[in-house]
Amino acid sequence: MGMGMQIISSCTQAQKSCLEVRGSGRKLALVPTMGFLHAGHESLMHWARKHSDLLVVSLFVNPAQFGPGEDLARYPRDLERDVQKAGKAGVDILFTPEAEDLYPPGYATWVEVEGLSSALCGRFRPGHFRGVATIVCKMFNLLCPHLAVFGQKDWQQLVIIRRMARDLNIPVQVVGRPTLREQDGLAMSSRNAYLSPEERKAASHVFQGLKQIREEFLAGKTGREELENLLREYYRENLPLAAVEYVRIVDAQTLEPTDPVRPGSLAVAALKLGKARLIDNILLQEGVIS
Amino acid sequence: MGMGMQIISSCTQAQKSCLEVRGSGRKLALVPTMGFLHAGHESLMHWARKHSDLLVVSLFVNPAQFGPGEDLARYPRDLERDVQKAGKAGVDILFTPEAEDLYPPGYATWVEVEGLSSALCGRFRPGHFRGVATIVCKMFNLLCPHLAVFGQKDWQQLVIIRRMARDLNIPVQVVGRPTLREQDGLAMSSRNAYLSPEERKAASHVFQGLKQIREEFLAGKTGREELENLLREYYRENLPLAAVEYVRIVDAQTLEPTDPVRPGSLAVAALKLGKARLIDNILLQEGVIS
Repeated sequence: MGMGMQIISSCTQAQKSCLEVRGSGRKLALVPTMGFLHAGHESLMHWARKHSDLLVVSLFVNPAQFGPGEDLARYPRDLERDVQKAGKAGVDILFTPEAEDLYPPGYATWVEVEGLSSALCGRFRPGHFRGVATIVCKMFNLLCPHLAVFGQKDWQQLVIIRRMARDLNIPVQVVGRPTLREQDGLAMSSRNAYLSPEERKAASHVFQGLKQIREEFLAGKTGREELENLLREYYRENLPLAAVEYVRIVDAQTLEPTDPVRPGSLAVAALKLGKARLIDNILLQEGVIS
Repeated sequence: MGMGMQIISSCTQAQKSCLEVRGSGRKLALVPTMGFLHAGHESLMHWARKHSDLLVVSLFVNPAQFGPGEDLARYPRDLERDVQKAGKAGVDILFTPEAEDLYPPGYATWVEVEGLSSALCGRFRPGHFRGVATIVCKMFNLLCPHLAVFGQKDWQQLVIIRRMARDLNIPVQVVGRPTLREQDGLAMSSRNAYLSPEERKAASHVFQGLKQIREEFLAGKTGREELENLLREYYRENLPLAAVEYVRIVDAQTLEPTDPVRPGSLAVAALKLGKARLIDNILLQEGVIS
């Protein structure tokens, strides 16, 4: 567009603008975020920018995907910095809706992706993926993007959203992009802000463990339980500060445990480290590690 | 359009056509049906035709909204006659999808409208409105209508769909149109085909009872239970062949029982008569009875 970034908080106005763009034949890309933008988000925006005519980024900390006792209230926020980063990334519309506008009194509708939502993180965060599927469905309907871009760190989320969009016949292409990492391998995440310096240092082992499992697989080990046990042991030794929620090797599409482990299977882990819940994953195959 | 009616069964092709129409600025109306079209459907089509540039009618007997033991297998079908009626009504696109195309292997996503879906018919047809909300959400996404037209006989369905569309931010106007009736007052319904001649004759009392309750209300009775009991009694006397599932006077928007009954409250009834399950309703207010 080259006309500067618009900041829109009204759902009605955002939908009107996006329907006009879609109607005019221009290609619209969406990067949905919860704000507190980091280089991971920026890489999604840059990719989206390159593959579209108009880039919409949503900033919304969605209450519906937080369980009781989770970090909704203290989720990090910095609107001013987000606006700057979005502006620099060439965002055309920054959509900053209010919860009361998205979930008005009498709100009653939920989108559930069965099966996929109860695996892995779903076991530890009941209702989480229902909240995710619902808000993303709403965003797709509001902003009618041709393509929507998500990070692969939240692999389960990506698979669920792709399934949801396909199942509900939403005319959007759901794109997953590689995880961006800090120099020591830690996956970028807004929640890394919760880590103390000591925890932050130790956190690099989340990914180091996954990389080691990948090496073991590429060297010939294909027993799922054996590989999972190796990863658990790695975390016990190198991340004694953390409580492992799960480590699992699954089919990258169905998220079901794979036995034996195959090229393209996904190793996933979730750990609690101090106030942060960290998740990460790695594809068990030759090639670039993202 | 004036180019004759297109019959499309492919979801992909239907979506492509409708997105093109929406992109071209023409106004698109949808009348979703389960086929076996009757004058009630035709009146919806005529209204939709008048208020749009392109009229899409879907014919789909949605398995997801039938419970086990319900009438999915024997639901009446007559595609040839439906095609003729749709053609005469000026339908531009007749969408006749296959179940395998709408619910492919691995299908996992459901749209649930809480609260509204468990009232009234929801208590007797668990899962029914989840199936309805899901297929209508899919149809809205596939066919992207500006407006969608439903009959008021299925009042609860209409309220649920309106809520779903609003909650999920689907840019569609959900329109309810008055119930068409046979000369003796029976609400038109494809399921009337299940009635034996004797049952068909008795069935007029479903609406006659509702009309009588309306008279009692307009004459001054406002006690909900009293009015409901009068209706139950009416059916016991005049429809001994039928088993009443429920009679209820509710708020027309929230579907919750109203005490006292107010102008604009809705009297609703569901009865089993032979192989048919009949539902009907009446607004308790002065004016034209539809």
